[in-house]
Amino acid sequence: NDKLKIFSLTANEPLAKEVADQVGLPLGKLSVKRFSDGEIQINIDESIRGCEVFVIQSTSNPVNDNLMELLIMLDALMRASARTINVVMPYYGYARQDRKASSREPITAKLVANLLEKAGADRVIAVDLHAPQIQGFFDIPIDHLIAEPILTEYFQGQGLEDLVIVSPDHGGVTRARKMADRMKAPIAIIDKRRPRPNVAEVMNIVGNVEGKTAILIDDIIDTAGTITIAASALIESGAKEVYACCSHPVLSGPAIERINNSKIKQLVITNSIKLPESKQSPKIKQLSIAPLLASAIIRVFENKSVSTLFE
Amino acid sequence: NDKLKIFSLTANEPLAKEVADQVGLPLGKLSVKRFSDGEIQINIDESIRGCEVFVIQSTSNPVNDNLMELLIMLDALMRASARTINVVMPYYGYARQDRKASSREPITAKLVANLLEKAGADRVIAVDLHAPQIQGFFDIPIDHLIAEPILTEYFQGQGLEDLVIVSPDHGGVTRARKMADRMKAPIAIIDKRRPRPNVAEVMNIVGNVEGKTAILIDDIIDTAGTITIAASALIESGAKEVYACCSHPVLSGPAIERINNSKIKQLVITNSIKLPESKQSPKIKQLSIAPLLASAIIRVFENKSVSTLFE
Ligand SMILES: Nc1ncnc2c1ncn2[C@@H]1O[C@H](COP(=O)(O)O)[C@@H](O)[C@H]1O
Ligand SMILES: Nc1ncnc2c1ncn2[C@@H]1O[C@H](COP(=O)(O)O)[C@@H](O)[C@H]1O
Repeated sequence: NDKLKIFSLTANEPLAKEVADQVGLPLGKLSVKRFSDGEIQINIDESIRGCEVFVIQSTSNPVNDNLMELLIMLDALMRASARTINVVMPYYGYARQDRKASSREPITAKLVANLLEKAGADRVIAVDLHAPQIQGFFDIPIDHLIAEPILTEYFQGQGLEDLVIVSPDHGGVTRARKMADRMKAPIAIIDKRRPRPNVAEVMNIVGNVEGKTAILIDDIIDTAGTITIAASALIESGAKEVYACCSHPVLSGPAIERINNSKIKQLVITNSIKLPESKQSPKIKQLSIAPLLASAIIRVFENKSVSTLFE
Repeated sequence: NDKLKIFSLTANEPLAKEVADQVGLPLGKLSVKRFSDGEIQINIDESIRGCEVFVIQSTSNPVNDNLMELLIMLDALMRASARTINVVMPYYGYARQDRKASSREPITAKLVANLLEKAGADRVIAVDLHAPQIQGFFDIPIDHLIAEPILTEYFQGQGLEDLVIVSPDHGGVTRARKMADRMKAPIAIIDKRRPRPNVAEVMNIVGNVEGKTAILIDDIIDTAGTITIAASALIESGAKEVYACCSHPVLSGPAIERINNSKIKQLVITNSIKLPESKQSPKIKQLSIAPLLASAIIRVFENKSVSTLFE
């Protein structure tokens, strides 16, 4: 197995360490430093010639630094004659810029795909892309893992009864549907509408939540505005209690304060993004996707299908 | 002339404004913002369909943010059907990572070239690249402007006599030679040597500086270690006074303090990199390269050769 190498960049070293442990390998030796002017300096400190290399990096905040770190690493790996370069992106930054919503906008999620390929990526392993269409932005194989089973399994162990799985918007219904099927529960959908321009949105709930324990599921929770308002709307519509969960805890700006002050009983997240000390909260429970990533890495290395295992 | 558009990104807006003024155009309308999670959001606020677009951006500190801003802008311009996309980079970040100095190193200057091309650049206008070989990293036309004539002209107006032009290292001799020719002055070279490993470097001066006014010329002054030590060595070798100049004032870390405490009488720089308030000093004189960039833009737009004009 000396042909398999796993490297961690700096965005989420604890997760990468866990993944390497589960694969049964030490992390590859590497130094990532900054020059005095802020430029990134990377040195790979062991031979990787002829190896199948996996680089673990989330392009979370600071997204531009984390992305450049990844691109520079890919350049170094390519020049050091890696046999294959596999990018493991637990969180894919810029995924929400996946279409032109108005004229003369960039499609940065596609730009990121182009940059990764140009820099030398042969394959990408991603988790819960904001839009599954992002897979089509790549001309190299991409494995799309989903964290929903990990979230579902957690809730299944909590002895919750009379559940309803709630999608906070129309875009997330497929995800809620999957969880609901696995938990044999009904779904509900929050239907945001703006009655007239410049009038506050109304949260209309499609489906029955009365007396039920609601689980809100989303892919990304960023400023937590949507999810906390959704929780209030559910309680007002008679839900007994509200849990929330997501794959990617971006949790920027007022997110933590909003969650702490919200009707959400518990927020369950994964470790696709490292949670700094300042964002920890007794309401937040973090689950590890390391086993998922480790299995995917092993299956790719053994040339086995990943999709059959996880989708 | 409504087919020529000049846009400024955020690294150096005062320079871009000056350039646009000299060309006789307003800057293109554009909004560059940050989402709450730090991702860059760009909207181009006027039609550029069929236009020859010039985007001015220095990839100075914060280099990764400035570079991503540029790449995202290129993506947006390409999707908005610009006829040609011309990147004006007064300062080219990562230029010093232009070769593998040891095994398994990236060549980030080449990576940057690849990324710019992939994102949609049709042409690059750069100023004093750390190594002229970086021109060969591109498969698109690149115009390489030099700021030395601007620095030289300034010193010519100072009534200095009995000059010697000094290169702080062997890599910069060509640049010093050019200035010396124009000023009809002799050159000298600082020859750094480490007599034995782990022994301090010795600064040996090749050429006669005794009783002369020395002008040190370099492309980049970063932490200012080399240049300030060179100035002391020149004074010790009998130079009457020492001036220094460079194209790109990176001036990171202890640079300003070192310059203020050094034997350098005056440091002359260009505005290829914006100098924040905190880096201003009575010893520093900043000259504008806006006329140089404006001429280059006009000549490219008129399909005339740039190199004959400036090299
Ligand atoms: N980092 C970001 N933070 C907040 N909104 C974003 C971000 N990136 C893109 N968007 C916007 O989010 C919208 C896409 O989100 P969605 O409708 O959920 O797919 C688009 O209008 C984008 O302009
Ligand atoms: N941003 C930077 N700051 C300081 N040194 C750098 C930087 N980028 C590259 N280098 C190093 O500078 C050397 C190249 O400088 P030079 O010998 O002057 O061409 C290489 O050894 C690089 O590793």
